[in-house]
This record gives sequence, structure tokens and C-alpha cells, in this order.
Amino acid sequence: MYWKIDLSIHCFRRLVLDFLTPSLNTLLQGFLDEDFGRGDLTRSALNSCNASAYWVTKQPGIFCGGPLVERLFYLLDPSVKIKVLVPDGTVINSGQKLVLFEGPAASLVGGERTALNLAMRLSGIATFTANLVKNLEGTGAHLADTRKTTPGLRIFEKYAFRCGGGVNHRFGLDDAAMLKENHLSCVESIDLAVFSLRKSLPWPARVIVEVETPEQAETAVRAGVDGLLLDEFPVSSLENLVPHLRQLSLLEGDPQKPSRVVLEASGIDVKNLRAYAKTGIDLISTSAPFTKSPWLDFSMLFDQAG
Amino acid sequence: MYWKIDLSIHCFRRLVLDFLTPSLNTLLQGFLDEDFGRGDLTRSALNSCNASAYWVTKQPGIFCGGPLVERLFYLLDPSVKIKVLVPDGTVINSGQKLVLFEGPAASLVGGERTALNLAMRLSGIATFTANLVKNLEGTGAHLADTRKTTPGLRIFEKYAFRCGGGVNHRFGLDDAAMLKENHLSCVESIDLAVFSLRKSLPWPARVIVEVETPEQAETAVRAGVDGLLLDEFPVSSLENLVPHLRQLSLLEGDPQKPSRVVLEASGIDVKNLRAYAKTGIDLISTSAPFTKSPWLDFSMLFDQAG
Amino acid sequence: MYWKIDLSIHCFRRLVLDFLTPSLNTLLQGFLDEDFGRGDLTRSALNSCNASAYWVTKQPGIFCGGPLVERLFYLLDPSVKIKVLVPDGTVINSGQKLVLFEGPAASLVGGERTALNLAMRLSGIATFTANLVKNLEGTGAHLADTRKTTPGLRIFEKYAFRCGGGVNHRFGLDDAAMLKENHLSCVESIDLAVFSLRKSLPWPARVIVEVETPEQAETAVRAGVDGLLLDEFPVSSLENLVPHLRQLSLLEGDPQKPSRVVLEASGIDVKNLRAYAKTGIDLISTSAPFTKSPWLDFSMLFDQAG
Amino acid sequence: MYWKIDLSIHCFRRLVLDFLTPSLNTLLQGFLDEDFGRGDLTRSALNSCNASAYWVTKQPGIFCGGPLVERLFYLLDPSVKIKVLVPDGTVINSGQKLVLFEGPAASLVGGERTALNLAMRLSGIATFTANLVKNLEGTGAHLADTRKTTPGLRIFEKYAFRCGGGVNHRFGLDDAAMLKENHLSCVESIDLAVFSLRKSLPWPARVIVEVETPEQAETAVRAGVDGLLLDEFPVSSLENLVPHLRQLSLLEGDPQKPSRVVLEASGIDVKNLRAYAKTGIDLISTSAPFTKSPWLDFSMLFDQAG
Amino acid sequence: MYWKIDLSIHCFRRLVLDFLTPSLNTLLQGFLDEDFGRGDLTRSALNSCNASAYWVTKQPGIFCGGPLVERLFYLLDPSVKIKVLVPDGTVINSGQKLVLFEGPAASLVGGERTALNLAMRLSGIATFTANLVKNLEGTGAHLADTRKTTPGLRIFEKYAFRCGGGVNHRFGLDDAAMLKENHLSCVESIDLAVFSLRKSLPWPARVIVEVETPEQAETAVRAGVDGLLLDEFPVSSLENLVPHLRQLSLLEGDPQKPSRVVLEASGIDVKNLRAYAKTGIDLISTSAPFTKSPWLDFSMLFDQAG
Amino acid sequence: MYWKIDLSIHCFRRLVLDFLTPSLNTLLQGFLDEDFGRGDLTRSALNSCNASAYWVTKQPGIFCGGPLVERLFYLLDPSVKIKVLVPDGTVINSGQKLVLFEGPAASLVGGERTALNLAMRLSGIATFTANLVKNLEGTGAHLADTRKTTPGLRIFEKYAFRCGGGVNHRFGLDDAAMLKENHLSCVESIDLAVFSLRKSLPWPARVIVEVETPEQAETAVRAGVDGLLLDEFPVSSLENLVPHLRQLSLLEGDPQKPSRVVLEASGIDVKNLRAYAKTGIDLISTSAPFTKSPWLDFSMLFDQAG
Repeated sequence: MYWKIDLSIHCFRRLVLDFLTPSLNTLLQGFLDEDFGRGDLTRSALNSCNASAYWVTKQPGIFCGGPLVERLFYLLDPSVKIKVLVPDGTVINSGQKLVLFEGPAASLVGGERTALNLAMRLSGIATFTANLVKNLEGTGAHLADTRKTTPGLRIFEKYAFRCGGGVNHRFGLDDAAMLKENHLSCVESIDLAVFSLRKSLPWPARVIVEVETPEQAETAVRAGVDGLLLDEFPVSSLENLVPHLRQLSLLEGDPQKPSRVVLEASGIDVKNLRAYAKTGIDLISTSAPFTKSPWLDFSMLFDQAG
Repeated sequence: MYWKIDLSIHCFRRLVLDFLTPSLNTLLQGFLDEDFGRGDLTRSALNSCNASAYWVTKQPGIFCGGPLVERLFYLLDPSVKIKVLVPDGTVINSGQKLVLFEGPAASLVGGERTALNLAMRLSGIATFTANLVKNLEGTGAHLADTRKTTPGLRIFEKYAFRCGGGVNHRFGLDDAAMLKENHLSCVESIDLAVFSLRKSLPWPARVIVEVETPEQAETAVRAGVDGLLLDEFPVSSLENLVPHLRQLSLLEGDPQKPSRVVLEASGIDVKNLRAYAKTGIDLISTSAPFTKSPWLDFSMLFDQAG
Repeated sequence: MYWKIDLSIHCFRRLVLDFLTPSLNTLLQGFLDEDFGRGDLTRSALNSCNASAYWVTKQPGIFCGGPLVERLFYLLDPSVKIKVLVPDGTVINSGQKLVLFEGPAASLVGGERTALNLAMRLSGIATFTANLVKNLEGTGAHLADTRKTTPGLRIFEKYAFRCGGGVNHRFGLDDAAMLKENHLSCVESIDLAVFSLRKSLPWPARVIVEVETPEQAETAVRAGVDGLLLDEFPVSSLENLVPHLRQLSLLEGDPQKPSRVVLEASGIDVKNLRAYAKTGIDLISTSAPFTKSPWLDFSMLFDQAG
Repeated sequence: MYWKIDLSIHCFRRLVLDFLTPSLNTLLQGFLDEDFGRGDLTRSALNSCNASAYWVTKQPGIFCGGPLVERLFYLLDPSVKIKVLVPDGTVINSGQKLVLFEGPAASLVGGERTALNLAMRLSGIATFTANLVKNLEGTGAHLADTRKTTPGLRIFEKYAFRCGGGVNHRFGLDDAAMLKENHLSCVESIDLAVFSLRKSLPWPARVIVEVETPEQAETAVRAGVDGLLLDEFPVSSLENLVPHLRQLSLLEGDPQKPSRVVLEASGIDVKNLRAYAKTGIDLISTSAPFTKSPWLDFSMLFDQAG
Repeated sequence: MYWKIDLSIHCFRRLVLDFLTPSLNTLLQGFLDEDFGRGDLTRSALNSCNASAYWVTKQPGIFCGGPLVERLFYLLDPSVKIKVLVPDGTVINSGQKLVLFEGPAASLVGGERTALNLAMRLSGIATFTANLVKNLEGTGAHLADTRKTTPGLRIFEKYAFRCGGGVNHRFGLDDAAMLKENHLSCVESIDLAVFSLRKSLPWPARVIVEVETPEQAETAVRAGVDGLLLDEFPVSSLENLVPHLRQLSLLEGDPQKPSRVVLEASGIDVKNLRAYAKTGIDLISTSAPFTKSPWLDFSMLFDQAG
Repeated sequence: MYWKIDLSIHCFRRLVLDFLTPSLNTLLQGFLDEDFGRGDLTRSALNSCNASAYWVTKQPGIFCGGPLVERLFYLLDPSVKIKVLVPDGTVINSGQKLVLFEGPAASLVGGERTALNLAMRLSGIATFTANLVKNLEGTGAHLADTRKTTPGLRIFEKYAFRCGGGVNHRFGLDDAAMLKENHLSCVESIDLAVFSLRKSLPWPARVIVEVETPEQAETAVRAGVDGLLLDEFPVSSLENLVPHLRQLSLLEGDPQKPSRVVLEASGIDVKNLRAYAKTGIDLISTSAPFTKSPWLDFSMLFDQAG
């Protein structure tokens, strides 16, 4: 399948620019405003002190968030000079310097907490993701994320997941259609629901169905879905089902309608990741990097001031 | 192909709800604010007059915008009672009543212009689209839209296109990747560009390539794209190329990688619509309903006041 | 009448600055956000490619929107260099270059669609307006616009109307009072309504009344209105009515209260434009440039990249 | 002049609705947010206490702001019941009850300060204005305001000025053109500047010129301006100049171009108000109600709680 | 008490930076938008004129607002060069130049009114405050402000109060808890209310109680409040009560729980300021600088243009 | 110390209302918009299906977020009926029902993910906090939070911390002054910095200093700070230092200036929580509930639909 490509190199720093959209400033400004409120009361103690400072990591992991840190400080005070030493997606070791800062001390301490909070959260996600991705090496399966992200941070958290080596799933309710268990309780049949969706969707939008039994899976493949989310199937069940569904999708596919379906396992315990990956599944989706990862611990240290 | 389904019934009124997203209010409120500015200077002449009124169309066509009119007036004054008589996507005839209103005259005339402007524009698009779609009947080809929409109105105008019987293409730069002519001048080769995109895209995102020669078309199909935009090809050229590319996509598709590509003709003169449709093409994309359609003409008439 | 001046030179490029108000950025940013959504998915294919490009028109007409294009790209990426070759309001010929661009290819293609959509819409309006204005040459009558503008774009569309040689009418419900047919159904008499408005309006606000019979017209002139909108009067009727109302306004005007009224014809078929203009009317208002004009067709071409 | 009408009854409560524009909620919400910040820390002491309360004035004056108080509390908590006892523009006496409230005590005290601040400021303006207006009784001159208003409150403060019996001047830079002293230092001549403005203005926009010498005044009248702001002229000078300019405006006004100019005195000491009014001037403009008025003092008292 | 320090030097210019928070731009932009509306109609008369100008004060007082003026003009047009000659909090004399400007005349006159309105209001507050503060010299008491500020301007007006030599009280409902008279009507007892607040407050938040009798004052001190607002107590009463409450707070304060309370007098006539200050009270709070101060009068003069 | 009160009952459901500030809607609306983007593509499969559903927890813990879930769904669709079965701060057991829903299926699944994401994150924090708080039982020490919160969620996460039994520290840079290590590198001495802060702070704002040596701690206490953050002191060091600093604060405190300082330990390993608590310290601050807590796992199940 064409997206089964080597992902090991995919998190260059420039990639973050993909989502440096025009409205990104509004989000970051909101984060600064949250901390500043009516203004920094401690600021008046700093007079016109200038300082240089750096970030250092206290833990090993995958760094993520550098370009966001640059943008945050730029919004706060364009006179602050920043040099990000580590591209996003890079392995970092305890004690490694990450970012250098120079400028008014009031601006450095003013943006410190917000910037660290963002980068530590994102680096925690990237690190946790990378650890899971290691288990998939050589299996052909990829790790996919979910919409179980912190409210307000989805675009950032999904970027961090990608920096950890994962593949993004849909970003919202609007960029693919997914019939989930709760939808199915409202529709007459999977066929009709898929048919009904195809009628109104933009043509590039994929249709994905979450299934809980092999029978539902067969029905969905026959209905020509683009993706199938096999929820909480045991490994043993998938070992037979995956090749069966692939075959079925090709048989169904008359030359005018081939429809190789993307098969995704969900609801699994990450301890069994490798066993699932070996079933021939395309994707294993997990929200664990968003719901279970601790933040990676960084410090901001002033090396001189005056 | 699964999305080649009967679209003739696809514009139910309820469908508009698909895009009645939480932030819709902000857009509509902005439209009201644009007209009101610092307040309606004529309002003080109306005292506490109540009135009933209706919309009537002066021209035949396809109606579009009813639920938006309801929402606009609700935002302006929740005490206004509205009854939309005509579901979106319905054929209307000259002189037909469309919407009934009852409430404070100041609110009825206050929202009149904004609501009419929106519905007349959208109904004009739906009508123009429907006239084009008629030419495709029985050919298996569908009419697709483009991103050539009025700034600020894309979600509305694409909805109107759908109400006229068309199929929506991507809504923005973020819900599918499309390598266009200007992109290709920056990439080493189509293959590498497609490869590079697959690395970073969310898996549900389709990859589409705009091509200008048969050779480019072949290359793109071999690179496994999801869609091909054949720009300004003559009908005669497509007659051979379409079956060739279909065949190629199946040959390329080993059982593990079938990739039936969606073929789309663009840059065509709408006078030749049917000729293009008969080439076996899947989609014909046009921005004419957005760039060339006149507004459909409605009036708001007060039938009593007191 | 003092505003009956030569309008042929009135669309200098600098004039656009009149509405480059502080909040303009918010509008333009919203247009970019609409297209970018969660980010440009195709961007990662462009690496760090730089390019130069230009806009060229495929059709003759009147150009409009140059300063807005500059501002849009500045908001997206201040490193893009832009040179607008054609002042707003200028006649352009097929094949003429309009704007030059240089900068990151990702930014050029990122802003391309939004900027073209805006400038093509506005140039379409300016061109359509200019064609109508030609019919008025030498008559002393001017073409005025209406509030029948695309929601969200009024300030831009009215600017384009002016670039085409037209005169703007009020911009919203708040910069002049206008008693329209629907208002009149709620008021006791035109006299009382005008009286009531004068009581609460800021003194610079004009009072205009829409009338449908010669009797209403006389009443309104006697009530001392600033402007009269003669709706759907036949040419033959206006030939007598216009001089009569002018005379009446002078007679009414005792030395302490002269009140030369501005006479405006509305609801006319543009085919009769010149006939109406010759009646001695001051203004002929039309929304046709907003509701009937096709967009002017421009292309953005990359001439080199690397 | 037609706007020289009896203003004594013009501040009905309904008039406030003129500016209850759609975006008013945003302004009022911003005022509440300013006081609440991250939330009312004292609120948890109030449990689920309900209370009734009322506003009482400690000083006599003119009340203004009732409908705004209603809207503010509605935005904060729709369950609060409010009864405004006094229409805007009404004379109130010390000790008089103004507004009744009933609802959750937490909401009553939460909105108390913001609502009082707004109404006390506006009532202060209305009261101060009314005291000045008394001096003009019987003179035919009216009191006009200026743009010297508190940033963010213009629409409210100008409404209060009207409730005190004054006439509003323009609301912003966009609803009339005014050439002031600083403009004149940049233009070749008054004639050319007026000519240049007429070319680009919407036709309903008036052109006003501020002059400092009788010669400038004559020039401006001859240029056909709509209004003349006679800045810091002594009373004695105006006694001759006013009739002269009136005469001139009529002479200039050939039957095709009558242009009775509105004459406005500015920069005067309010102690001389009546003397100026007797010169035959139309308007005397002052910012004193905005820059010099003390707030009217109200209290909010709880009469029962439980 | 530690905050009883010499305040005479506390209004340096840099202090204004304390509240130059990230969101400040939004507030200032809103002020500009209020005046510009749909654009400056007079602007087209100015062509490309450049000018230099200055502000001069017509009255003596305390200047306040310089850094805000800089920021306002920067938001409007970054090409305007500004030099603020007078630090905030400085005494200024009639005729003194305050700020120098150089740049496009259209930008200078465009921002003139908004900037002057803000600085004149703030300087009026600073001046009025400084006059009150003089009465407290040598008494050890300080002048504190209240939340009785103009809606939307609190952060600015409280800054001006500080520039006049006053001490700020809480900025909103969220940075200290204050049980006021209306709260007390809803609580069982002062003790329980204080107890209940301590349970849910962030630990740095102070608890303050407004009292109207000596008995309430004693109860509140015994409940361990941080501050006591003695409302409308006569001077004679405070002379005894202040030392009594101080003593009580120390007695109550066993070594583990000292609780020297801050004593504040409110609701006093400013004529008695010094008498109150001599009672040993810590703070005297007044809203007079917000509700009673006239604006300080400045002019903007163009010294050359071309 | 007065805030050393029994916190076991402090998280009533009504307390959440403390931060249901006017601007809360904006935050929650933003969360919905993030998921909806241009609209829910799957919605059209649901027709007009109505459903009832419930939330159930898969894990034991402390529930948090009920009132926010109500508000979120109200913003999305006021016709959805919600019954929150469990007050915030309550212990919940695996399999327990938490919330009941009834309404249009499209609205239930539309808001499902956003609401779950918020409540699961907050309940995870509350649960983690409660587990830490247990270790402090009977010691007199309390657990305090920090500003190390997820960007955009501070107000919610700090509420969850409180629901778990913790005490909130300051909410932003604006509600207390804190001199941290990085500040101290810019100031001449702790004394002067504290002095300088007292000069400009609102009087209710506390001054806190972070210290790293016993000498710094003594200096800060002598400078009269309100709180002392003892960073990374070993337990053994605090055992002596805490009583010493308390004594010092009382000695320093002459009867006119008592200043019992709040002593807070930070930078500790949570495994040593109880040992630290027994040193007599007032507060132990930790960000672990924000940076290390996994989300509590809930499901939304449809029990019927039709």
C-alpha cells in the first residue's frame, strides 16, 4: 500500500511549517494571554535587565515544538533572539541544550512558562509515540492516532505524534466520514449508511466504518468502504480475518471497482502491539500518547544577566 | 465506482445541517454587523410596528439558503417567527412564495437585505449548477466544483453547488493534497513529490495531481495517485487517454496495490460538457457556477403591518 | 449639483487606502484561514523552493484589488516580494501582466487562490460597472450602487464599483436613513416619518425616501427629504416628474430652507440606462455589477523556481 | 432648517434600540469579562442564595442606560428578572428607585459593578448635557457633540448626549468628511480639497470644513460645503458673519445649486453658550459632557435575600 | 506595614510596561476601529502629504499614557515616528510639548482623536489623584482606588491612578475576595462566610470584608480577614476603632496566627481626607479620580507639512 | 493558619460555578469548533434519529467536569437533555454511570469526543491529586499546584486539582508576584526587589520568593515576603529550617509588622511527600497531577435510538 513507506525520516523541522497556518498566531496568543491575564506583576522588579538563557532537557526523549517556541516568543517580544538547536523529531539526551535565548529578561521569564508547557507536553507525546513505534519495526504496520486529544491542542498534539513516527488519522469530524458504533445504532444497515454518505460527501472524503464482528467487517468491505476499524478484535481473530478481508475486497472489486480497504485495529492493549502488527493489519490506532504520556522535563536556565 | 450514485435526490433540507457547525453563528453575525454598523438609523421611524411578510421569487430556479435565513433572523431577533416553505434544492417557479415572516417590523427590515443577499447568491449558484448537471444525465460523469469561491463564503457556496446536483471537491488546502502546475515547477519529479506527500499526510487524505500531458498522466497513475486532474485536454485526446489510464491503473495495481484512479477533466468550456462527459471521465470540474452565475431575484413583501 | 463632477479620473491607486482601515487585516486574515483550515497539506512537497511568478489577465477589463493582494500576501508571509504593475481602476488588455511575485513557493501557492478569488471578483465588478457608466456619458447622470452586495464583502465590492466609475450610495443601515416601501407600510405618513427621523438622527445623516407614485414623490419633497428614490417609474413619467420635483423643491425652499433634492431612479432595466439618464435624473442606482457580473479571469504563472 | 425641531420629547426608551445592533453583545460581554477575569472569587460564599434588589439614585439628574442594564444582566444570567422603572432621558430625583432585580444573589452582585459603572457614566453625561441645553431654549440653536469620547464607549456616550437633549454629530471618520485645521495644512486650497472629496465620497456623505477666519469661511461656503465649523470665533464676530454666510450661500446657490450651509460654532466657553446661540448659529458643538461631567451616583441595595 | 513605602517615585515610564500584556493590542485596535468604522472619508483629501506634528498641553497636571500613544500609532501605521518627551507620572506645565510625530499626514490625523482621547482621560485621572494624594503627605495613609472604573478601560484607568501616586486595589472579581454589604445579606455570619471562602480560594488570594458597624469590624478581625473596609464611619469613630482593631488583630494573633489586618476607610468625602488619614488608617479608598475628574486638555498641532 | 482547614468537603458541584465566567463560552465553543471544522461529514447518515445515551467510567477515580459537559452540549444543541448523576469531586467506581443524555443522535455523537476529552483529562487530574493528598492526611500540610498546566486549559485543570483536594496557587502572572530563580539573577538583592515590587503592586497582591539556600530564605523572611518557596531542599534541611523561619518571621514582626510567612516546599519527589509534610511546612507544591496523570477512561454508550 502506497503509504507504507519508510517513516523514519519524516519529521524534519520544516514539516512543522505545514501547520503554521495563518490562524496559528491566534492560538498561541491565547496561550500567552492565559498566563499574563492583566499583566506580569513581577515584571517591575526586572528593570531593563537583559539576559541570555537556554533550555536543557532533564530526560532523554524526542524533542518537539521548536518552531512553536520561536513563534510564541516572537508574538510576545520580537526583540528576543532565539536559536533552536534541535530539529523537531530528534532524539535528545539528558543534559542536552535545546534552545538559546537572548533578550530582555522580562520577556524571557514572561514567555518561559507558556513555551515550556507547550514543548514539554509535545515532546512527551513524541517520546511516548516513538517508544510504541519501535515495536512495529519490520512488521509493515503503522501506528495511527485518534481524536482523543486535549481540547484546543489537537493540531499540536497530532503533529507531535507524527514527530514520534506515527501516522495521523483524521483531524476532525470534517475531513473523513467515520461510522462508529454509536452511529450504527441509528442506521438501518451499514450498506445504506455508506450509500447515504457517498451521496453527500465531497469526493475526496474517505468513508471508514468501525466494526465489532467479522460479519460487520464483511458487510462493510462489500459496501466498498475505504477503511475499516476493527475494534477490540483478539489477535487470533485478526490472523484469519485480515487476509480474508483483503481477498474479499479484491473479489468485490471488479475491474471497474477495486477497493483495497485499509485495515485498522483499535482498542488494543499496547502490550500486544507487536502481536497485532504481525497479523498483516495496516494500522494500529491508539490514543495512549495523548492520554497516558508524561511530559518530558525541561528547564530554562539563565546563564548571564545584566 | 462507488460514488457514482444517483445524486438526483441528494439535496434534502436536512443536509444543510451538515455544515451548521458551532462557528456558523460567527459568520452569520459578521454579515449582520456589516450591514448594521453602528445601528439602523431608519429604525426609529418604525415605532413598535409589527408586521407579517413573505419572500417571493421573481425568477424560476433552484432555491437554496432556507435554514441560513432562519438562523440569521434568529441571531438578529429571536422573536421573529419564520416558516421556510421550500426545502433547499427544490425547483421554484416565478411568483412562488418561499418564506413567511412575522414579528417586529424593525427586525424584519433590519435583516431583510443581508438574508436576501445570501439566499439570492446561493440560489443563483444552485440554479446555474443544475443547468449544467442536466447535460451530464446518463453519462456517468459528475460535475465537481473548485476552490474558486467568493472569499468568506466557501462553505455556503459549495453547499449551493451540491443543492444544484454537483459533487464537492476539497474544501480547502487542508482536506486533500493536490499537486498543481505551479507545484510541479518546484519538484524534482511527480513520483518523488507523491512519495514525499504520502510520508507526511494523514492517511485519509487523498493525493491528486494536475497534469497537462498524457505522459504526465501516465507517470502520476504509476505513482499511485488517488485522483488525476486532466487540465485542458481536448475531447479527442481524452477519448483514448481515459480507457488507457484506467487500464494502466489496474495493471499497476498488483493484487496488493489496486489503485483505481479518479479521472477529472478541468479547464473545459461548458458548451462541450456533454462531449467530455461521454469520454468516460469520472468528474468534470468547473467554477462557472461561482464565477459566472447571476443571483436569483427574490423580493420581500410586507402583507400587513400594524 | 456639487457632486456632479468629472469622475473619469477618480480611481487612483491611493484611493484604496481610504478603506485600508485598522480592521481590514481581520477580514483578509479570515479569507486566508478559510482556505488554509488546519494547514496546507501539499506544502511539504515544496521543500524550500523559491519562485518568481506573475499574474496575467486572460480577458480585457478594469483591474481592481492590487493593494488588497499586497496586504493578503503580507499577512501570509512578509518575506514575499510583490510588485503591482497596474493601478486599480486601470483598463487592462488580454495577456497583460498585472502583478509580480517573488518568494517561497509554498507561500506563493498558499495565497494564490484566495488572492485571485478576491481580485477576479472585484475586477469583474469594476469592468461591468465601467460598461454601464459608458452609457451615461454626457448626460449628467451618475451610476449609484446599492446594498445588494455579497455578505462579508461590501466594503470591497463598493470600492470596485467606484473603480469602475460609479458613485457609492450608503454603506450600511447606519450612514443614512432610507424609508423604503416596507417602512412606509408601518408609518402613518411620509411627513411624520421624516419628522420623526430628523428628531433622532445625527445631523450629518441624510434622509432618503423611496417612492412609487408621483403623489408620494411630491409629499416627500415637501417634507424636505435629502434624496428621493423613484422606484420603477417609466422613462416617460420621469421626463415630466423630474423638472416638476426640482421646481417644487425650490418653491418649497423658502430662503431659510432651500432643499434641492437628489433624484435617483431605481428598479430600471439596464438596457434603458441612457434613456433614463436623459430625463435629468441625478443618479441611477443598480445592483447589476454585484448580482450579474462574471469574474474577470486571471492566471498565476510561475516563471522560474529553484 | 428641517432638523430644527422640538427635541424635548426625543429620548424615548425605544430609541435606545436604534443602537442595539447585533454586535452590541460583544461590547457588553467584554465589559463583564473585564471585571470577572478568571471568575468571581467571592461567589462561593453566596451558596444558592436568591435575592431581590433595586437601584436608587443619590442625586437628581437625567437617567440613561436602562436597556443596557437589562442586556448586561441577560448576558450574565438569563434567569435574573429585571424591571427598569425609568425610561432613558427621564428626570430623576434623589432617592428615586430606578431598576428592580430578582434572581441568584451571585449573579446580582456579579453584574452590579459593571452595570452601575455604565449607567452612572451615561446618566452623568445626559445630566450635564441637559443642563447645557437649557441655556439654548428659545434661541433656535442646538447643542452638538464631538468625537472627543471615551475610547470604546462612543456609541453609548453619544446616545447619552442625545438623551440629554443634544444632537449627535458624526460617529466616526467614516460617516461624514470633515476637513479640520490639520488637514488644511496639507491641501493646496479649500476649493480643491472639497472638490477632491466630492469625487470619491458616497453621495450621502456630507462635507464639513473647520475654519478659523472669515475669509476661510467665505471660501468654504463658495466651495459648496454642507457644514461649516467656525472654530473659536468671538461672539461679536459671529454676529455679523452668520447672516453674511447665510446670504452668501443663497447667492452662490443658483437655482440648480442651492446650498444652505449648516453653521456650527466650536471651541467656545460654555459660560457664553447663550450669547453664541443668539448669533443665529445652527449648532454649538461641545465635548464638555464627555470630558467634564461627573458620574451620577446610584446605589444597588438588596431588600431581601434567602 | 511593608507596603507603606515611599510612593513618590513609583511612576517611572517603564512601569507602564507592566500591563503591556499580549492582549493589549486587541484593546487598542478596538479603539481605532471604533473611530475608523468603514474607513476615513476625509483621507483622500490628503494625497501623499507627510507632516510633523506635536502634542502640547493647555493645562498643568500629571502626564499619563505616553507608551499607549506609541503603541496606538504603531498599530495604525508603523511608519509613523514618535518621540514621547515626557515620562508617565511627570508634572507638566501649560504649553509644554509632550509628544513629537512624523509621518504620513493621513495617519497622523487618523490616529489623532483616539490617541488624544485616551491620554487626556488618563492624564485627567493622574492629575486628580495627585491632588488628593498631596493631602495625605506625612500621615502614613495611602490613597487606594476602586472598581468604579469606565467599562473597558479599567487596566488603563488604574494605571493612571498609580501614576498619580495612588495604590491599586483589586483589579477584578478574581484577584481578591471581598464580602461587601450585599454579600453579607446572603450569609449566615461573617465567620462562616470567611471560613467558606478560605476553603475554595487560591492561597495567595486575600479575603477582605466591608463592615458598617464596630461590631462587624471586630467579628471580621476575629475571623482573620486580611483587609477590612470600614464604610462610611465618621472620623471620630475611627479614631478609637483603628487602634482597637489593630490591638485586637494582634491579640487574636497567637504566635502561630498573627494577622495584622489592613484597615481601609471608604465612602468618605474627599474634603475630610486628611482628617481620616490621621486616624492611623492604612488606606483611604476613593473612586473620585474615575468618576469626577475632568480630562486634561491637550492639542495636536502640525508644524509643517508637504 | 486560617487556610489550614478541612478540605475534604470542598469540592461541591456548585463550586464549579466559581469559574463559569462570562467568557467561558468562548473557550468551550473553541473546543467544539476544533473538532467540527467545516462540519460533521458523518452527520448525514443519521437522518433525524433521536437517541438516549449515558457515560460510564471504566476506571475508579474522582469525577470532574460535569457542569462543563452540560455547558458544552448546550452550546452545541440546546435541545439535548443532560442529567449529570455525579457531582464533581465525587469518588466513582468502575462501571458507574456518570451522565445521561437524550436528544438528536447527530448532536450526541457530535459533542461526544470533545466532552469526553475534557472530562477524562480533568477527572484524571482530580484522581491523581486525590491520591497524593491522601499522603498528607493529619500532617497539616496541603498540596498546592503550579502554573505548569496545559496551554489553554489552566482554569479547568486548576479546578480539577481543587476537586482532588488540592489548594490552588496563583492562576497567572497577574494575581501574585513571585520572584523566581531567573528573576533573582537580574536583581541587586532580594530586599531591593521585594521593596521595588511593593511599590507598584496592587495592595492585595502577595509577594512570594523562591529560594535555594537557607541564607536566601532568611533574607526573604526579613524582607517581609508573604510566601517562601523552598526549592529542592532536602527533608533533613527543612526539619530545622521551617521552625527557624517561623520564629524569625515573628521576631522580625514587631507588633506593627507581623508577617507570618507561608512556607512552601517545591521540587520534591512525590515519593517523599509525607516526609516533607511532617517538617511543619505549610504547602507542598507539585505539578505532577498536570504533567504525569493519565486520563480517566469513560465511554459513551447509546442505549436506544429511533
